[in-house]
Formats: sequence, structure tokens, C-alpha cells
Amino acid sequence: MGEYFKNVPVVKYEGPKSTNPFSYKFYDKDRIVRGKTMGEQLKFAMAWWHTLCANGVDMFGSATQDKSFGTSDAMDLAKAKVYAGFEFMEKLGIDYFCFHDRDLAPEGRTLEESNENLAKIVDVVAEQQKLSGKKLLWGTANLFGNPRYMHGASTSPNVDVYAYAAAQVKAAMDATVKLGGHAYVFWGGREGYETLLNTDMGLELDNMARFFKMAIAYGNKIGFDGDFYIEPKPKEPTKNQYDFDAATALNFLRKYDLLDRFKLNIEANHATLAGHTFQHELAVARINGAFGSVDANQGDELLGWDTDQFPTQLYSTTLAMLEILKAGGFTNGGLNFDSKQRRGSFTLEDTALAHIAGMDSFALGLLIADKIIEDGRIGDFVDKRYASWNSDLGKSIIAGNESFESLSAIALKNGEVTTNISGRQELLENIFNQILVSGV
Amino acid sequence: MGEYFKNVPVVKYEGPKSTNPFSYKFYDKDRIVRGKTMGEQLKFAMAWWHTLCANGVDMFGSATQDKSFGTSDAMDLAKAKVYAGFEFMEKLGIDYFCFHDRDLAPEGRTLEESNENLAKIVDVVAEQQKLSGKKLLWGTANLFGNPRYMHGASTSPNVDVYAYAAAQVKAAMDATVKLGGHAYVFWGGREGYETLLNTDMGLELDNMARFFKMAIAYGNKIGFDGDFYIEPKPKEPTKNQYDFDAATALNFLRKYDLLDRFKLNIEANHATLAGHTFQHELAVARINGAFGSVDANQGDELLGWDTDQFPTQLYSTTLAMLEILKAGGFTNGGLNFDSKQRRGSFTLEDTALAHIAGMDSFALGLLIADKIIEDGRIGDFVDKRYASWNSDLGKSIIAGNESFESLSAIALKNGEVTTNISGRQELLENIFNQILVSGV
Amino acid sequence: MGEYFKNVPVVKYEGPKSTNPFSYKFYDKDRIVRGKTMGEQLKFAMAWWHTLCANGVDMFGSATQDKSFGTSDAMDLAKAKVYAGFEFMEKLGIDYFCFHDRDLAPEGRTLEESNENLAKIVDVVAEQQKLSGKKLLWGTANLFGNPRYMHGASTSPNVDVYAYAAAQVKAAMDATVKLGGHAYVFWGGREGYETLLNTDMGLELDNMARFFKMAIAYGNKIGFDGDFYIEPKPKEPTKNQYDFDAATALNFLRKYDLLDRFKLNIEANHATLAGHTFQHELAVARINGAFGSVDANQGDELLGWDTDQFPTQLYSTTLAMLEILKAGGFTNGGLNFDSKQRRGSFTLEDTALAHIAGMDSFALGLLIADKIIEDGRIGDFVDKRYASWNSDLGKSIIAGNESFESLSAIALKNGEVTTNISGRQELLENIFNQILVSGV
Amino acid sequence: MGEYFKNVPVVKYEGPKSTNPFSYKFYDKDRIVRGKTMGEQLKFAMAWWHTLCANGVDMFGSATQDKSFGTSDAMDLAKAKVYAGFEFMEKLGIDYFCFHDRDLAPEGRTLEESNENLAKIVDVVAEQQKLSGKKLLWGTANLFGNPRYMHGASTSPNVDVYAYAAAQVKAAMDATVKLGGHAYVFWGGREGYETLLNTDMGLELDNMARFFKMAIAYGNKIGFDGDFYIEPKPKEPTKNQYDFDAATALNFLRKYDLLDRFKLNIEANHATLAGHTFQHELAVARINGAFGSVDANQGDELLGWDTDQFPTQLYSTTLAMLEILKAGGFTNGGLNFDSKQRRGSFTLEDTALAHIAGMDSFALGLLIADKIIEDGRIGDFVDKRYASWNSDLGKSIIAGNESFESLSAIALKNGEVTTNISGRQELLENIFNQILVSGV
Repeated sequence: MGEYFKNVPVVKYEGPKSTNPFSYKFYDKDRIVRGKTMGEQLKFAMAWWHTLCANGVDMFGSATQDKSFGTSDAMDLAKAKVYAGFEFMEKLGIDYFCFHDRDLAPEGRTLEESNENLAKIVDVVAEQQKLSGKKLLWGTANLFGNPRYMHGASTSPNVDVYAYAAAQVKAAMDATVKLGGHAYVFWGGREGYETLLNTDMGLELDNMARFFKMAIAYGNKIGFDGDFYIEPKPKEPTKNQYDFDAATALNFLRKYDLLDRFKLNIEANHATLAGHTFQHELAVARINGAFGSVDANQGDELLGWDTDQFPTQLYSTTLAMLEILKAGGFTNGGLNFDSKQRRGSFTLEDTALAHIAGMDSFALGLLIADKIIEDGRIGDFVDKRYASWNSDLGKSIIAGNESFESLSAIALKNGEVTTNISGRQELLENIFNQILVSGV
Repeated sequence: MGEYFKNVPVVKYEGPKSTNPFSYKFYDKDRIVRGKTMGEQLKFAMAWWHTLCANGVDMFGSATQDKSFGTSDAMDLAKAKVYAGFEFMEKLGIDYFCFHDRDLAPEGRTLEESNENLAKIVDVVAEQQKLSGKKLLWGTANLFGNPRYMHGASTSPNVDVYAYAAAQVKAAMDATVKLGGHAYVFWGGREGYETLLNTDMGLELDNMARFFKMAIAYGNKIGFDGDFYIEPKPKEPTKNQYDFDAATALNFLRKYDLLDRFKLNIEANHATLAGHTFQHELAVARINGAFGSVDANQGDELLGWDTDQFPTQLYSTTLAMLEILKAGGFTNGGLNFDSKQRRGSFTLEDTALAHIAGMDSFALGLLIADKIIEDGRIGDFVDKRYASWNSDLGKSIIAGNESFESLSAIALKNGEVTTNISGRQELLENIFNQILVSGV
Repeated sequence: MGEYFKNVPVVKYEGPKSTNPFSYKFYDKDRIVRGKTMGEQLKFAMAWWHTLCANGVDMFGSATQDKSFGTSDAMDLAKAKVYAGFEFMEKLGIDYFCFHDRDLAPEGRTLEESNENLAKIVDVVAEQQKLSGKKLLWGTANLFGNPRYMHGASTSPNVDVYAYAAAQVKAAMDATVKLGGHAYVFWGGREGYETLLNTDMGLELDNMARFFKMAIAYGNKIGFDGDFYIEPKPKEPTKNQYDFDAATALNFLRKYDLLDRFKLNIEANHATLAGHTFQHELAVARINGAFGSVDANQGDELLGWDTDQFPTQLYSTTLAMLEILKAGGFTNGGLNFDSKQRRGSFTLEDTALAHIAGMDSFALGLLIADKIIEDGRIGDFVDKRYASWNSDLGKSIIAGNESFESLSAIALKNGEVTTNISGRQELLENIFNQILVSGV
Repeated sequence: MGEYFKNVPVVKYEGPKSTNPFSYKFYDKDRIVRGKTMGEQLKFAMAWWHTLCANGVDMFGSATQDKSFGTSDAMDLAKAKVYAGFEFMEKLGIDYFCFHDRDLAPEGRTLEESNENLAKIVDVVAEQQKLSGKKLLWGTANLFGNPRYMHGASTSPNVDVYAYAAAQVKAAMDATVKLGGHAYVFWGGREGYETLLNTDMGLELDNMARFFKMAIAYGNKIGFDGDFYIEPKPKEPTKNQYDFDAATALNFLRKYDLLDRFKLNIEANHATLAGHTFQHELAVARINGAFGSVDANQGDELLGWDTDQFPTQLYSTTLAMLEILKAGGFTNGGLNFDSKQRRGSFTLEDTALAHIAGMDSFALGLLIADKIIEDGRIGDFVDKRYASWNSDLGKSIIAGNESFESLSAIALKNGEVTTNISGRQELLENIFNQILVSGV
């Protein structure tokens, strides 16, 4: 099978002063941070599609990156990608991967053939897993690329499309279980509408819920005891997508009583497209008991589409890691690099350099988050800020013992409120910066 | 009490050809449209704050509009506004109004005095209601203007503020019931956060839910059997507001089991700030059984703040009326003009001209929506588009009789999907335009 | 050559009451509006790329539309597109077209072959022009699709790319002249930067200016006496494009002394991506003496990328036509449909229905603009609003006879300003609506 | 005059490990960085309006911050602000300030009285300057707050307003010269339009240019030899402002031949509102020879209005300082904190803590920028990237010796471009992070 990433050496931790581009300056896999190794805290995963398939095509230009891996036959290419992918994970020290059915194996002329293609490649992957110990973080089905899904998959107006989508998810769930995946993801890029003039939103959402119930039933049948995730995204490709953001997905899950088996896969760039910070979406997932996994990337807040950049913004990675630590860290989920090298970063070396940048940035995020917790100034401030909720009155309200009448009487007695304290946002931001630049 | 809007005559329907600025060209109150009068279908309400209090102040400039109504004493002004308001409703033929406690009566030196001020003015309003037959659409409390609420009201970190807010809502609910209001609104302009660095989002939302439960309990006690509404808004003044959009509010209501007494008050400009169309938010409310009332205005999609313009965009008013008709029309709710005349439209005549523009635009929205329904081309297209859900397979899926296995078997037998039909968006938009310009 | 758009009949004007989808309800080509036929006022052009090449591919999905025209050989397809294109123009009654070199003819294995391919197809087009009388509105070169342009064309850091781009534009200008085009367009989709970390913006812009000077020199040599246009776009595909908007392009043209030969091609969707209305960009072009041509489409203001929808928003088309009429109408330019049918509108009938929607919408824009001018209320209001600039003082300021000292003396004498009059925005919007729905 | 900022001690540099909130961790005024002291490189200025006048009012709430300085008389307050302001600058070690006429002294009942008020306070300021050595960075006139300017000042449709604005600027320029200011700023918050329906944009811009020419003439007369600055802002309060961004202002300055006396004052938050990064706007100013001064703050890219936050984002401050160093550093300009403490940071201590945060963040920006330059990896990469422009062909193009014909011949000979090199964005971002966290 040869070597595919020839100019990419094995990448090792060399510390903050190294100028070797092919080294980790901050990601030190076995270093213990908050009781686990960095590897366990971060659980990096390679995204099969971007790393092995994406070639720099955009809406205005053709491929700049050669991901042909020396072959033009579709099934040969699929196999080459398996070997290339495991070589890449090995060289970079990445333990997990994620896939869509159709970036693993090519769509055949018929559904039967597609299923066979998938099964064949799954066998090759399974073999490589055995050799390497690499693990599947999650699997999913591509229900958006083929023209048949142009008006939706589980929300299609066309019942034939719905059946086709069911068949495809069935096979993708089989593959996920076979490869030992502990999670299965639904991203609904075509589940939404282009115009309400031609759309019955109520029926479409009812049908999506029916689809998810079938997925649970099928999972139970085949022994899948992992998480299902919804991955929210507000728009693109579709004008309005039904899983707009975390809260919207949660309303759906609650409405249709799906919350016991479903959690959320939060993507940084999807958060910003919805008008939220990455941290916000993680927090919403957490307080609703639905934190599952993360698609690690970043967008450009001045651009209105999904740029899927490798994450290098340390404010974002640090605040994300603070939230993830608050949520207790990852169980079934992890940090999947749903990130693509820039179109102008067109070499296979860039594929590695971009992962290194993302991994070092999340490693820094973890290390700085840890230092913020240890420093204690920010945490103490927050505790003090909410201290009145530990007072007798605070406890009584929380216990449900108060009413508008009782509180009104208290307020009339109290007179004007004189107990507010400054929110100190600028001071807190300054402390954050001080810790950020203070060395890790 | 004199006449306050001296240059504003009684405004009457004069038909589409009139060039009299002080006439309705399209709002013909008693004309029957879809089984009700236009007055009943539209239920226009005057917003006490914008119409009687707003004076053109913005973040960079002082008042351009004189809403002093001839006095500078706070309580005299409050009374003058009652008379001015009823004069305005009378001249314009508007039957409803909405208020915040603090635009009805001034805040006093103490909470007690504030409550007394409110009670006094409520008596004056009640008297005017008796004389005129004008009705209260809904009431609310201003829990955002006073500095005590700078960090939130029902989500304040400070339990004293929470108690104060409870007292204020209690009095505002009393006023609402006294004036015969069938709805009470919560808009959480300060319920949210400026930075997550200093915020405990989980506790704050729990507390907000506790607050709403007390409101329900108090309502039950004082015989309020109307609707409670949450009015979603994503941001402004606060960086991130907890009631971001309809779906976010619904997730909250479901999580805390409040959906049986709460519905939504959808504001057009808040919808666009959240990245949605007005129609979208109405549709989300409708399919979740939570359509309540409307704050009728419009934003400027190229601007990132709440411009609260009088609604004059006919695409928006028509699509909104289509949704409202689908939802069965208004019960307790109506169309409240949460709209302010432009700062440069500084005369009291503009106050009237702006309302006329808004009322004619919604009247046109209703008339065009009616014509679209009568025309039938768009509705028929949608029915046909979803026809496969009435097939045996469609019915079986809806009945819950299918599984991934059964659907997969069907899909394998079917082969590739060949039954998709064009979504015809451009044709539908063209039909819409054809009807729009075809005369009402 | 056969018939390509088999289900598309010849489309004729049938008037506002027709329910025939394949008819114009408002575009009546020979009707005289403001002294010219509608055909002359609107000068519709078919965009070769969208109409004949685009197939519904987006960043998340493959082709839904079949534009293979019965062949898979690249040159045969290029020829078929010529016949299909002229058939389409004939059936729709469109007199003009626009092209990029590479959607006219395929890129060859070498530049030489590419040039030959282009020359061959240009001959076929020229022949069809002779038979049909159809005219070229403008030509351009695709300097963004090929990977060689990944870092820019005339702003590439690589001088070899610059030379290649020069060669390509030379050939495209030859083709434009050969086909009788009166304009040549530069759209700089890759002229900009992804990150300033690796970019020398000053050098890149100097080089772009040098490129344009060579274009002028070459144009003079080959007898091209038409307009050069810059088509501004702020972003997409590149993060920041140098021709951000009309004003940015004008600053560039002024800095490098290019304004005598360059004008602007304003695209509606590019305007909104830059945070402007379509009308604004047209007005900026007009008052700078640089109004050239229009790419007629529309975006979705809630989406952050170029959706290139067929224009159906009548506020936008009407305000655009008002500006175009103010600019004296088109000379070398026209209305080019840089618009693509929605991905879900996947049939060749939709290609026609979408053009019909766009043409009827601009026809309505023209007719309503004409009625607004005839009505006179809006124009009269504006004249009166600026009347003080015709006073003695106004004239003296305009004549340059006043100074801060003289004006200060006048202001001190005048005392506070009492002569402001309301801007009456709401009234004007209401008059606009009244005319909009009053029938054409 | 007493002490105004009683709980604010003198703030000194204590180094990166200090946990004293009232210390600089990074701003070490006399430390030499790139040949100048940090004080000279950064030239921090206090903004009179935010620091001494702003009180936390926003569109939905009243003041949270007490900036009454112990008095309620307008002129006494103006004087108190002078003493408070100089005390604040002294304690914080800030050497410069900036003002609007109306935040220095209150508007009187007449223009005459306003002028007298201003002159009186200017005398008090001048006296304090003499005592303290503090300097005026720039002055400006508030031409946006008073209702008379509701439709613009130098672009008003009303010639009386124009004269009044001239009088006001004359007095503000007098004050600027009297206080030794080397720059005078025009920010056109009302110079723009709310709707083009009532606007003559061409006339308004001509008038604005006339106004600026009078300013130059008057400046020459009174011996003002400093810079005039335009401060671009795209919108807010006005829907569309004529000085949209740097490029738009430059087009205006070029069109009316004003570029020899005018430069730009770039504000970070205005940049982001226009869809640009702060760095972009600085770069545009620099390459057009128009870099003047900076309004140092930051916005929130998920919010659509001017939040004027104290700058704490180190990516932004570092990239800004890199551009400023490239431009040769400040001459007449400096870093003016057009930043306001958050509404919830309501104490006078927060006023200081917020400035400390901003100053430390820009100090870090300077230090990190210096380290990036010293490190050399990024700079070397850029040099190498553009190396082909130093080849013979590159030089020949730059010298103007090439044509489309000569370049086409070269390209035909070259064949396909094989000389592109990766843009390495991810690597460069990673190097940036490595330096950012490596200690200063």
C-alpha cells in the first residue's frame, strides 16, 4: 500500500520553543491535566471527509488539492483512503475518526451496490483498526449530497425519498456498530426549506420525528447502546434548517419525547452562523443534559457561510474547554476535526500542519482552562456574585416556598435595591488575558 | 382636557385612489374578509410607549418629538397621555392598546408610591375605557429600564432584585386584570448575559421558570384566565437573551412544563434579528400550538438593531397574514404596533401618518392573503407536492407501522428515486407578485 | 441540432390576468415607457454560465439539473450550448447575452488549445448571431475557477500566474470584440486575500492597476471602444475582495487614474452582501459618473452568501429602475440575469419559468417606477425638501462664496434652527405601496 | 476641587504576575520597544465623553453609573469633569485626551452662549494642561446629538442647519488650536440617509465637500497645521452613513481633491460593523497614505451595533499594532479609548479597571507584534511568497514595460503554471499562537 503522506513525518511533542513545523508545541498526549491524560481529555478525531476526500473545490473554483492517492478507480480509491487515513492518524497520533457512509465508500449504481461497497470497505477499516487500535468516534449517513435529497431526506415531501433515506441510515448504523462506534450523528443539511411558499413545516417535522424513532428502534435491535446526536446548523445549504441551533433541536427532542436517547453534537462554526458563540451552544447543551460531542473548527464571523477552518482562536478553544470540563468531559463524544485546510494551503503537508495547528490550539485551550480554574479568581468572583441565592430568601425561592405576594411584601419592606455589585466584565477579561499569555 | 393631536383629523376609509394622506386607502374596518370584519381580523392595538412616550431619542441624539402634551409634572403627564391616547385611538379607529406599567404611570420614589401612581392612572384609563369602549390587548411590566435590573430581573444574580421584580409584576398583573386585559406579556430584555465569564446560566433559567410559575399561581388567584406570552428577542439590549427566538422559548416552556399556560408574542423585527423571517417565527409558534399575539413592526435587514419601523413591506405583511389565518386568526391576541415613527418624522402628524401606513399595509396583507387563498394556485401546488403522504405507504409511516427494515426493503425494490417533482419556487414567487399587483 | 428546451414554448405577453405559466404578464416588449420600448429600457441579457452551464451543484450536493444537452464531449457540448442558448433567447424574446471565456468553450490541455477552443466556438456564436440578430452585452474571462488562480490572478503573488491571466484576458477581449460586445467586465473573485498574515495588499493592488492599464492599451489596439466594468463584490469565494463595493472600486479607479475608461457593473446580491441596498450601489455609481451595467438577481438578506436568485422582489426592482432612469438609462450596459434557478427547481422548464419571473419583475419595476414619476408626490416632496439650497444663501454656498466666518455670523444672527421639516418616511413608503398595488 | 475617583489609586506597572487589579501587568510606560518608549508607541488618550460623561444609558435603560461628580449645575459639572478628568489621567498615567465640544461644555440657550460656555471651559482645561503636561490628541464638534441635526449637519437638506454646523465647527476648531491639538476629527453620524426615497445623495455629498474645504481654509487662517481626520462608520445612528468605511471615505476625499489635508481616524468597532477587520481598515488607510489615528475599542461580531467595548482581544490588538508599526507609528495621532465600561460595570473603579484592561491589551499587542517581527518566520514567509516580483519579469511588469501581447507570448511558452506555493495559513496562525503564549 505504500506511503501516502510522504513528506509528513511522525509528529511528536517538542515543547513550546520548537520551531519544527511538524511538531506539537503544546499537545503532550500523556501529560496529565485535571486527572486525565491530554489524549483522554481531548479525544481528537480525524474527519474522513475533509482529511481524505476534500480537495479544495469551492463554489467558484475546482480542486487545488490532490487526494487521488494514486488511483482513479472508485473502490481502489476508497481502499487507498483507508490506508492513507490510518497512516495519517498514526503519524499525527490521533486515536479516533468519524465518517459518512459515502466518503467511506462510493455510491454504486444501485442501492444494493452502494450497500455492498460500504460493507466491503468497512471490512478493510475493521482490519486496520485491529492492527492499529484506532477507534471510531461516530458514524453518519450522507443524506444531502445526492440529488434525490434535494428537497430533504427524512423531511422530503416524497415518501420514496424517505424510504431511501431509511435504507441508507440502516446500513450506516450497521457500519457504525460493526466498527465499534459509540455514537451516531444526524446532520440535517437538507432538512429544512427554501421557501415556506411550498412547504408544510408541521408535517415535515412530524415525519423527521418518526424517522428518529425508527432509528432508536433499529439501534435497539442491533445492539447499539451508544448516543444519537443531532448536529444543529441554522442554514447552508438549505435556507432554513430545522435544527437551527441547540435550543431549537432541544425543543424538537422534547416535543417528540426523544431526549432520553438523543444528545447534541455542537459545531463551533455552526454556532456562529446561528448568531451564538461556540461556548454558548456548549452551555445550552450542558444545562439541558444534552452535551454529547464536538465538531471542532472555527468560522470567520465576518463571513456568512461555513468556512470550517481549523481552530486556532485560543479564546474560543479555551472557553470551549472550560464548558466541556464543566460538563464532566467527554464520555461517548470527542473533538472531531470537521475542518478543512484552506484552498490555498494545497499540499498534503498542509493537511498535517493544519491538524497540528488545531490540536495545539485545543491543547492550549485545555491548559489555559486548567490554569483559569487553578487561579481561582474568576470562579470565586462568580460564586460571590450569586451568593444571595444561598441566603434564606434565596433558598426559600428555590424550594418553591415563595409567591408574588410574599416577595412583594419583602420588596416593599426592603425599599430600593442597593445590593447590586458590579459585573466586572473588563476585569475578568483582563485576568483571562493575563493567564493566557503567562505560559503553559 | 383639550385636543392633543390638533392637526390630526378623524381618519376614514377613502379607497385606493385617495390622495388624502389622512385617509385609509385599504383598511376598511367593516369590510368582511374571510368571514370576519377587517377590524376583527386585524385587531390593531396602539403601543402606549411608542405612540405616547417615545420622543426620537437614540443612542447618539436627544428628543426630536414633543410628547410632553403640555405639562412637565410626571403625574399630570401620565393623565394627559391617557386623554391623548384615547383621542388618538378614536381618531384613528383603533380599538385596542397595550402598556408597560412604567409608561402608563411614572416610577415613584418608593415601590409603594410607584404602585399608587399606577393604580391612580389605571382608574383614569378605566374611566376612559368605559366612555369609549376601547379595550386592553395586553399589559406588561417594564423590568429592564431601571438600573436595578442591569443584571436581569427574574434572572438577576441578586435575590433582592428578584423580589422587587415579583412585586412589580404583581402590580402590573393587577392592572391588567382591572382593565380587562386577556393577556400578559413577558419580554426579557435583561434576562440573559453580557459575558458567560460571570454568569451561571443554569441557575438563572431555573429561577426564571420559578418566577413564571409564581405568575401563573398569582394569575389563578386573581381570576386571570387569559394567556401569558413570552416575547422572544435574541439580543439588544443584552448580548444574549434567553428567549432568543420562538424555538428557544418553546424549549424553555417545555423543559419547565409551562406550555399549557404560555404562548408566544411574535415580533417581526425580533424575528429578523434572530436570523429568521417574521413568517418563520409565526409558523414555529403555530405548529407548536403556541401562537398568541403579534408585535407588528419591521426591521431593516441590513441593520443589526431593533429599528421598530412601522410595517410597510407588503411581502412581509401578506405572508404574516397567511400564517395568522392558518393559525385560525387571533383569539386573545392582536396586532400591536410596537413601532416608532422615524426620528426625522418628528411631528404629531407623523405619529398618525405612520399608523396609517402600518394599518394600510396590514390591511393589504390581509386582502392579498385572501386573494392568494381564493386564487388557489399556490395552495393546490403544495397539496400536490405532499400527495405521496396520502398514499398507502405514506399513511403507514404516519401510522407508525413502518421500520428501517421495512422501508429498506421497499427502497431496495424501488431502485433509484424518480418521483421527485420541481419545487417551482420562482413560479410561485411570480404568482405571488401577479396577485400582489392585481388590485384589491 | 434539434430542439433543446422541448417543453418550453415561445413565451409571449398575455397580460396581467393570464394564468399561463409560460407567458409574460407584464413584460410587453414593444410597449413604450418613458420614450423607449420596454425592450430598450430593460435590455435583458442571458448569462451563459447560469442558464446553459449551471446544474444545481452546491457545496453540499451534486447536480440536480441536466445541462448536458445530449452529449458528453466537451467541444460538442460547447456547440450544443450555443444552439440551446440561441433557442432559449429566441423562445423567451431575450436580445442579449453575456459570457465568460470558459463557459463558452472548455479549457484545453494547454493555453494554446484553450485559445483555439474559444476561437472555434466564437465562430459558431458569430454565425448564430448573424442568423438571429442576438447581441453580446459583454464578455469576460474566468480568472477564478482554475487552481492556478487560487491566490489571485492579476493580484497573484506569482508572476507566472499574472502572465497567464494576461494571456487569458487578451483572448477574451479578442472574442468580445469579434462578437460585437460593447463592454468587457472584470470580476475579481480571487483578487483579495484569505489572511493578511501572508499578504502584501499594496503590491497586489498596484499590480491590479498595471493589469487594467494593459487592458486599456490592448483594447485601444484592437479597436475596442466600449466600456470596461469592474463588478464589485465584498467576499466569496475570497475572504476579502479588493473590489468590496462601488465606493471601494471607485477609490481604486481614482487612485490609479482609470476612471475615464472604467465604469461599474452593479450586482444586486453583491450589494446586499456588502451591507448595502441594490439601489444604494446604483446611486453611488450614478453620482460618480460610473453607472455602467447591472447583474440582475437578488440575494436573501438572512443568508451570508451569494444566492443569485432570480429577482422577484418588486421593491428592489422598482427602486433600481428609478435609479437607472435617473442615470439616463442604459447605454452600453443592460440587465444581465446573473441568476440561477433554485437547486430544487431542477427542470429545463424551470429555467424558463425563472427567467419569466425575473423579466416580469423588472418589467413591473419599470412600470411602477414610471407611475411613481408620473404621480409626482414623491418627487415633489424631495424638491421641496431641498428648496433652501435654491435660496440666496444656498446658492452662495454652492458658488463657493461662503466661509466658516460668514456662516457663523449668519447662524449667530438666525438663532436656533426652526426651519426643519419632517422627512415623512412613513408617508412616502405608504404612497409607494399605494402605487405598487394600483395596477399597471 | 477634591478627589473624584476616590477608590482608584495611582496605577503602576507591577509586571505579569501581579494580582493587584489596579496595576499594569504589561504596560510599562518607559520600556523601550522598537526604538521608542511604550508610552510613545501607544500614545493612549482618554475620551472625554465615555470616561467623564457616559453613564450607562442605553436604548432600553437609564443610567447605572454616577458621573455627576457632586454637582447638578451644568457649568459646575463641566468644570468638575475637567478636574476629574485630569485626576483620572494622572492616576492612570495617560498623557492625552480627546473631546467633542458638547461633552466639554454644555450647550447654552443660544449659539452665542454655547460658544461662551465652551470658551470658559477651554480656559479651565488649558490651565490644567499647564499644570500637568497632559496634551490634546484631537478635538471635534458634536454635530449629531441636537435635534437640529436630525437630517444631517453638513449634508442637511436645510441650509440653516448647514450654517449652524459651520459655526459650531469654527468654535470647536478654535478650541482645538487653543489647547494645542494637532488633529481635528469629523465623524458623520448624521451625514447619510434613512431612506433614499427622500434624499438627494449627490447634492448632499457635494455640500459635505464644500464644508470640508471651508474647514481647511479656516484652519489655514487660524494657524492650524495639523491633520484633519474623517472617522468612517457605516451605519448607526443613521441607516447608511456616507463615510461607510476607509475606502469609501478615500473615494470621497479623492473625488473632491481633499486628500492632501485629510487622513483617517480608524475605529475598531466601526471596521467590524462595515464587514471588515480592524487590521483591514488600518491597512487600507496605510496603503493609501492616509493613516492618521485610532479609536481603540472593540465590538462584538455577533452584535450589529457599536458596543464600544474596551479592547481586550489580543489577536486584534496585535494585528493592529503590526499595521501601525508598518505605517511608521503615530505622528499626530494616537490610541483614543472610544470605549465605554459595560452598563453592568457601574462603579468608578470599573472606569479605571476598564482602561487598565484596554491599556494592558494594547501593550501586549505591541509586545507580541515586536516578538513576531523579531521571530521573523512570518515576515520571511511573506518575502519569499512574493519573490517572483523581484525576478526580471516581475521588475519589467512593475516598470511598465510589458503588455498583454508580451505576457501572452510568455504564458504560451511557459505552459501551465507549476510555480504556485502553499499560502500556509494554518502554519502561520499556529506560529502566531506560539508567540502569543510564549511570554512577554
